[in-house]
Amino acid sequence: MILEKVNYPEDLKTLKIEDKEILAGEIREKILNTVSETGGHLASNLGVVELTIALHSVFYSPIDKIIWDVGHQTYVHKILTGRKDKLTSLRKMNGIAGFPKTNESIYDNFNTGHSSTSISVALGMARARDIKGENNKILAIIGDGALTGGMALEALNDVGSSNTNMIVILNDNEMSISKNVGGISMMLSKLRTKSTYVKVNIKGKRTIAKIPFIGNKIVRLVQKGKRGIKQLVIPKMYFEDIGFRYLGPVDGHDIEALENILNICKQQEGPILVHVVTRKGKGYKPAEETPDKYHSTSKFNIKTGEKVGKKTKDYSKVFGDKLVKIAKDNKKIVAITAAMADGTGLSGFSKKYPKRFFDVGIAEQHAIGMAAGMAKAGLIPVVPLYSSFIQRAYDQLVHDVAIQNLPVVICADRAGIVGNDGETHQGLLDMSFTNTIPNFTIMAPKDFNELEEMLEFSVNLQKPVLLRYPRGTESMNFGKSNLNIEYGKAEVLETGRDVTIVSIGKMVSRATEVSNILKESDIQTTVINARFLKPFDEKTLLENINNLIVTIEDGTIVGGLGSKVEEVLQANKIQIDLEKIAYPDSFIKHGNVNEIEEKYGLDAKSISENIKDILELSKIKKITNIKKR
Amino acid sequence: MILEKVNYPEDLKTLKIEDKEILAGEIREKILNTVSETGGHLASNLGVVELTIALHSVFYSPIDKIIWDVGHQTYVHKILTGRKDKLTSLRKMNGIAGFPKTNESIYDNFNTGHSSTSISVALGMARARDIKGENNKILAIIGDGALTGGMALEALNDVGSSNTNMIVILNDNEMSISKNVGGISMMLSKLRTKSTYVKVNIKGKRTIAKIPFIGNKIVRLVQKGKRGIKQLVIPKMYFEDIGFRYLGPVDGHDIEALENILNICKQQEGPILVHVVTRKGKGYKPAEETPDKYHSTSKFNIKTGEKVGKKTKDYSKVFGDKLVKIAKDNKKIVAITAAMADGTGLSGFSKKYPKRFFDVGIAEQHAIGMAAGMAKAGLIPVVPLYSSFIQRAYDQLVHDVAIQNLPVVICADRAGIVGNDGETHQGLLDMSFTNTIPNFTIMAPKDFNELEEMLEFSVNLQKPVLLRYPRGTESMNFGKSNLNIEYGKAEVLETGRDVTIVSIGKMVSRATEVSNILKESDIQTTVINARFLKPFDEKTLLENINNLIVTIEDGTIVGGLGSKVEEVLQANKIQIDLEKIAYPDSFIKHGNVNEIEEKYGLDAKSISENIKDILELSKIKKITNIKKR
Repeated sequence: MILEKVNYPEDLKTLKIEDKEILAGEIREKILNTVSETGGHLASNLGVVELTIALHSVFYSPIDKIIWDVGHQTYVHKILTGRKDKLTSLRKMNGIAGFPKTNESIYDNFNTGHSSTSISVALGMARARDIKGENNKILAIIGDGALTGGMALEALNDVGSSNTNMIVILNDNEMSISKNVGGISMMLSKLRTKSTYVKVNIKGKRTIAKIPFIGNKIVRLVQKGKRGIKQLVIPKMYFEDIGFRYLGPVDGHDIEALENILNICKQQEGPILVHVVTRKGKGYKPAEETPDKYHSTSKFNIKTGEKVGKKTKDYSKVFGDKLVKIAKDNKKIVAITAAMADGTGLSGFSKKYPKRFFDVGIAEQHAIGMAAGMAKAGLIPVVPLYSSFIQRAYDQLVHDVAIQNLPVVICADRAGIVGNDGETHQGLLDMSFTNTIPNFTIMAPKDFNELEEMLEFSVNLQKPVLLRYPRGTESMNFGKSNLNIEYGKAEVLETGRDVTIVSIGKMVSRATEVSNILKESDIQTTVINARFLKPFDEKTLLENINNLIVTIEDGTIVGGLGSKVEEVLQANKIQIDLEKIAYPDSFIKHGNVNEIEEKYGLDAKSISENIKDILELSKIKKITNIKKR
Repeated sequence: MILEKVNYPEDLKTLKIEDKEILAGEIREKILNTVSETGGHLASNLGVVELTIALHSVFYSPIDKIIWDVGHQTYVHKILTGRKDKLTSLRKMNGIAGFPKTNESIYDNFNTGHSSTSISVALGMARARDIKGENNKILAIIGDGALTGGMALEALNDVGSSNTNMIVILNDNEMSISKNVGGISMMLSKLRTKSTYVKVNIKGKRTIAKIPFIGNKIVRLVQKGKRGIKQLVIPKMYFEDIGFRYLGPVDGHDIEALENILNICKQQEGPILVHVVTRKGKGYKPAEETPDKYHSTSKFNIKTGEKVGKKTKDYSKVFGDKLVKIAKDNKKIVAITAAMADGTGLSGFSKKYPKRFFDVGIAEQHAIGMAAGMAKAGLIPVVPLYSSFIQRAYDQLVHDVAIQNLPVVICADRAGIVGNDGETHQGLLDMSFTNTIPNFTIMAPKDFNELEEMLEFSVNLQKPVLLRYPRGTESMNFGKSNLNIEYGKAEVLETGRDVTIVSIGKMVSRATEVSNILKESDIQTTVINARFLKPFDEKTLLENINNLIVTIEDGTIVGGLGSKVEEVLQANKIQIDLEKIAYPDSFIKHGNVNEIEEKYGLDAKSISENIKDILELSKIKKITNIKKR
């Protein structure tokens, strides 16, 4: 086995190309074996095996800086930079992360997770290098999908006119390489790797343009795309026009061709763009055929490709199915996604109402701005986005939606702790940052049924709404009674004399669990399902106060439900014990959701212990009455 | 006078071109007369007089929808849509706004204010129109500067591949039209306005490309730019490649040519981009020569072009001057602006340290992402942005800066109420939304001296910082004693037995004023300058508590200083009266700062009356002691 001898990038430097090709196969096998057990991002990693080998063969990491856009495609990189034995701990608590982390390895040069950041970061590092008078190489590796994000486009524009030495590797995995194009591409690549190429290229840029067939073919292929998702249509001339030297396209699974072209890059000055064509899922048939299904996967059977464990209905699906139903009668409803139709449960809607469905690509700002335009024109846009990606459109929520009080329904999918994807993907902030925006209504359902009701309520509200729900399935089903959603009105699920628990969304079932545990110690609990964070139902809270109030929320402790209750108590001059249970004001690392909840004391056992301790302490302090004045 | 007879767009339909040219002159005069008295955006409005006349001559507003990007260039539009007599009330409280407002006129189709939103909004409206089966025209008017914003680039990408009927007017005012180019441009424009043009254009797009000289010339000119600010370098072929039909360039001051080209647009299908070349400040020499100075101007003398009233030193200048001083010894400091070098006080820095100064264009996301890269590479980037524009980069603050705890210093200029620019420009949210982000330190100085000290402190902190300060000058100078900034430490300015006022930033001087007023009624005040919103100095507050605590802040009441104090009181089980003085959770309209402060009870008189009332009420209620338990 070659991989046995390869631990760090320097081990690649002496390997022959043939051995690297064997190594590529071994790495694929290792990734398959691991991800089929741990779950994770499969297709994108299988697609960059050769590219990563070539990068670490040609460049000198960590002196040279490689910035991986999104960063979910760094498993190969991790294997080649001292972490191959830790791969089994991938995405697990205290294990290695699924994304680059500077505190995990000196070979990880910058933390990524969200899309479209790498070019900005790389340009910053390149400019810093120039100021410090150093001369290392800086690279950004970015997929064609990420290139539709505004931040990446802003950065391209700046890099192009900067004249700074840096390399952008466009990892184009949307283009299927037919034999024909593949051959021409290789020819072109070989043409360029000849020693005369550089000179030719400098003297007359037209050399490339002279083969117009390639150019057109490529543009056409890029335009088509495999998944029907909107692509950024970039002719290579565009890159040259804005100031890049364009190299490629090169076959991203040909290590020799890749090394040749990367070696040329090292000798060039100014911004360079290398167009690398890769195939997502390369080498694993099920993933090649349906890379979407293996983009982020759970445990699966390698032989059959089938996912292990039963597929349970999740919030995204409940949302999507209900939207299809509502949209049948309400023709004003349209749905917008930012390249996440499947993930957010919109596939059904997209098939049923193709003319009312819009996939704008990775472009959250535009998605919300366009929704605002649609709302102003009389439609009711529903925009499901993963909670942590809504952050990209904070200004659009304020400036385009809220100021004009437009009926745009933002659905925060994957709200709260998401688990294994870690810091960049936890959806802990959405309630708090949206709460700062005037005119927004913020809701969260306690179970599937309530999500359906809230969605119906939201599309009829005619105001900006944030409707948040977690990743995965409901943890309790409260049945179909009492599902009448009233604006700004909470629901009292049970009443008891000792403690009042105020909770919202997913944490309502937790509150119920806690109540049940406490009953065993003869502690009686009032359980309030807030339903609305904003406007918050002050009246219901005041009518149901006990000596201790506990808030439970699947979000940051700053500016969420706990703060709302604090505000109500202060405004009403009520002096009472308040225990705010939420995530601390810090970034929460990866691990599975249950583990994280236990670690931070948000599981039912921890919460009920916590409450019992407080009540015990109160007794000692002989605080028995609510002090009102 | 032609203008006397023109009130609404329909009045234009029957006018001859010659009369419209006279009208253009009269409108310029009216704008000059008004803005020289009221202040406002001059150069951009003088630049679009003919374009606006042509638009309202050819299209049928409000049925056809015109979306003005940024919207500061809509004075001409307002004059031509029933508001010419209200122009003297421009930007004044209860007067007409300086930006389009849907609640001001049915001719204002969407509220704008921030840059780069128009294409998204127009696409949303166009898609809504198609769904509703209507057939009106939708236009976005966007400047070349705004086109560097990621949101606009995301939208262009989507429009281009949408095949939707809509028109993007690129108002290119960076290109100086030399006689030569002007002539060719007109020739080209006339060529296109011939009836055969459309057919030629459909049959063979090459017609335009056949005149390569024009293309190259244009690209070169656009690349050069007038102000040295980074430009989006877009060859016209780019627009055609991504799916637009490109028309132009056309002389934006030739009404006949404009009307001809716009009439052609009306007959075309699919997305069209019209490249209009205008001159900022057109027709007023001082503004033509230095359009920057007349972009947003205060009152000035029309004859001489000189600003009326003495120029006072403002926070931006204090910031800029201090940064130049600090950067002399600290070579790690770099400064980044998003097309606001002058406005944010960075002109001096840019001249003194051109290699450590970066103007990225209107691209806040990239600005912060790049800053994060620089910080990771060992530099200390200082990024002054107007408070309301920081919103664009909320995700970058979280994802690129805070997660890795990088030393990026964000300076929120124009924080708090800015006044006449209204809802879209008020900087009321920055403290609250940044407070939701882990690892951020949030500070605000009470006067110029403290800003200097805080800036020095910030660049040495090695953590993410938000340093906020208001538009304009200091309202009080507290002298140079006690300027030692300690991390998370507040300053007690005076102590008194009756009331404790906690304030931050600009509002510290307000607190001092209030204290002085209260002394006349024998009410003794403790005045705390919080200095840090985060981490908040709980200890100093607890040591200085009185029976009444008042918080004063130049921001929203949600999640700011008042909430911090609330939290401290609750956590320490202190039952005391708390009066939170801040702006309500709503959008605050235009008016001058003093008027707005009075309206919302944030002036010294209102606050002191408020405090006296509360104390009076407390006496009646006989609450005399702090209840602790």
